[in-house]
Amino acid sequence: MSSPAKRAVVLCSGGLDSTVTAAEAKAVGHELYLLSVNYGQRHVVELKRVPEIAAALGARRHLVVEVNLQAIGGSALTAAVPVPKDRPNKEIGSGIPPTYVPARNTLLLALALGWAEVVQAEAIYFGANVLDYSGYPDCRPEFLRAFEALAKLGTKVGVEGKTIRVEAPLLRMTKAEIIRRGLALKAPLHLTHSCYDPDEQGRACGRCDSCRLRRKGFAEAQVPDPVIYKSADL
Amino acid sequence: MSSPAKRAVVLCSGGLDSTVTAAEAKAVGHELYLLSVNYGQRHVVELKRVPEIAAALGARRHLVVEVNLQAIGGSALTAAVPVPKDRPNKEIGSGIPPTYVPARNTLLLALALGWAEVVQAEAIYFGANVLDYSGYPDCRPEFLRAFEALAKLGTKVGVEGKTIRVEAPLLRMTKAEIIRRGLALKAPLHLTHSCYDPDEQGRACGRCDSCRLRRKGFAEAQVPDPVIYKSADL
Repeated sequence: MSSPAKRAVVLCSGGLDSTVTAAEAKAVGHELYLLSVNYGQRHVVELKRVPEIAAALGARRHLVVEVNLQAIGGSALTAAVPVPKDRPNKEIGSGIPPTYVPARNTLLLALALGWAEVVQAEAIYFGANVLDYSGYPDCRPEFLRAFEALAKLGTKVGVEGKTIRVEAPLLRMTKAEIIRRGLALKAPLHLTHSCYDPDEQGRACGRCDSCRLRRKGFAEAQVPDPVIYKSADL
Repeated sequence: MSSPAKRAVVLCSGGLDSTVTAAEAKAVGHELYLLSVNYGQRHVVELKRVPEIAAALGARRHLVVEVNLQAIGGSALTAAVPVPKDRPNKEIGSGIPPTYVPARNTLLLALALGWAEVVQAEAIYFGANVLDYSGYPDCRPEFLRAFEALAKLGTKVGVEGKTIRVEAPLLRMTKAEIIRRGLALKAPLHLTHSCYDPDEQGRACGRCDSCRLRRKGFAEAQVPDPVIYKSADL
């Protein structure tokens, strides 16, 4: 009898980073359990792509958990605060941006941890990155290590001596490196979506921090960006 | 000008412990922000009482966040696993019971942390208890301290040097002590609900672990229990 596949829960928003993260988990032999969280984000359109991404990657399961974070508010991604546009790249990486969602990554990891415990996964894969979003406190490596320690103390599997690792393979990659890595792994980049503020047809604005970082990344990687932008002149 | 009231987010399920916890937060001068989480628990009836509990305690706000943890499953409280009945008291406190919800308290605290950051609360109050539920890993003091450390690393306020404390004032109290403390603080115990498996009319079963602990607590405190049980002979 062959040994059972190693399972990984992958937090997958349908964005570029989380899709490449899922491809990384697959590349090291994990059976994929893709977890999407609908927390009322403006850019919920990106979640619509996850079933196709899951199919393209041969994921074992895809689960969507709904949480109404709008009730809590406090962020440009969940409340009536404008998403910043056309910020110079040097500003994007400095300070905590208004798109920071209070305790969002703690919540996403908590949900991933619960599912990881239920399906007996040995790792959680998370597309955190410290270069592009140095302003988000809950993307830092020390935060991820603290969550791993918490997971060990707060779960039945942890008490039984097992560790659920938190893997963030893109943590120190530039966007261009992530794109090149995604292409090398044959990740379905054409299905991914990055914009924080898409229009009603789901077209990317091209001007929010996330679009600017994506466009710069594709330009640096010298690869055409498959995303459709609202303005033809972008 | 008087200084602004110190704010606390209190995780309040409508149960006995969380209601007394809220009364403790009020007793030390906090303005109360009661947070209830509807995670698809069987005993969601208890949440119905929270608006009345909030009014009785003069809470500033009451917020309900919805999360469909049934999608994740893995617990007698959220999935089609039977709730144990009539277990001897010595068994209730040993091992991890089937009513353990994977990573539930990590999730509850993550939501409380997000709201605490938005409303600038200085503390989260949580009705964790290690005596009655020694089997739940995510009620232990070391888990709560680990969460505090995580909160410091993973939030904007933490990066700015502020600490959001996690207070668990009932941590080492017996159920009888909690009941006596609640009476001393004039907590609205008559509005609280404890049963894991109430009937359609919301009447407590009297036989699940939670009912048994509650009944034993009221008996030891020598106070009548205001809850209505399904069987008259309990």
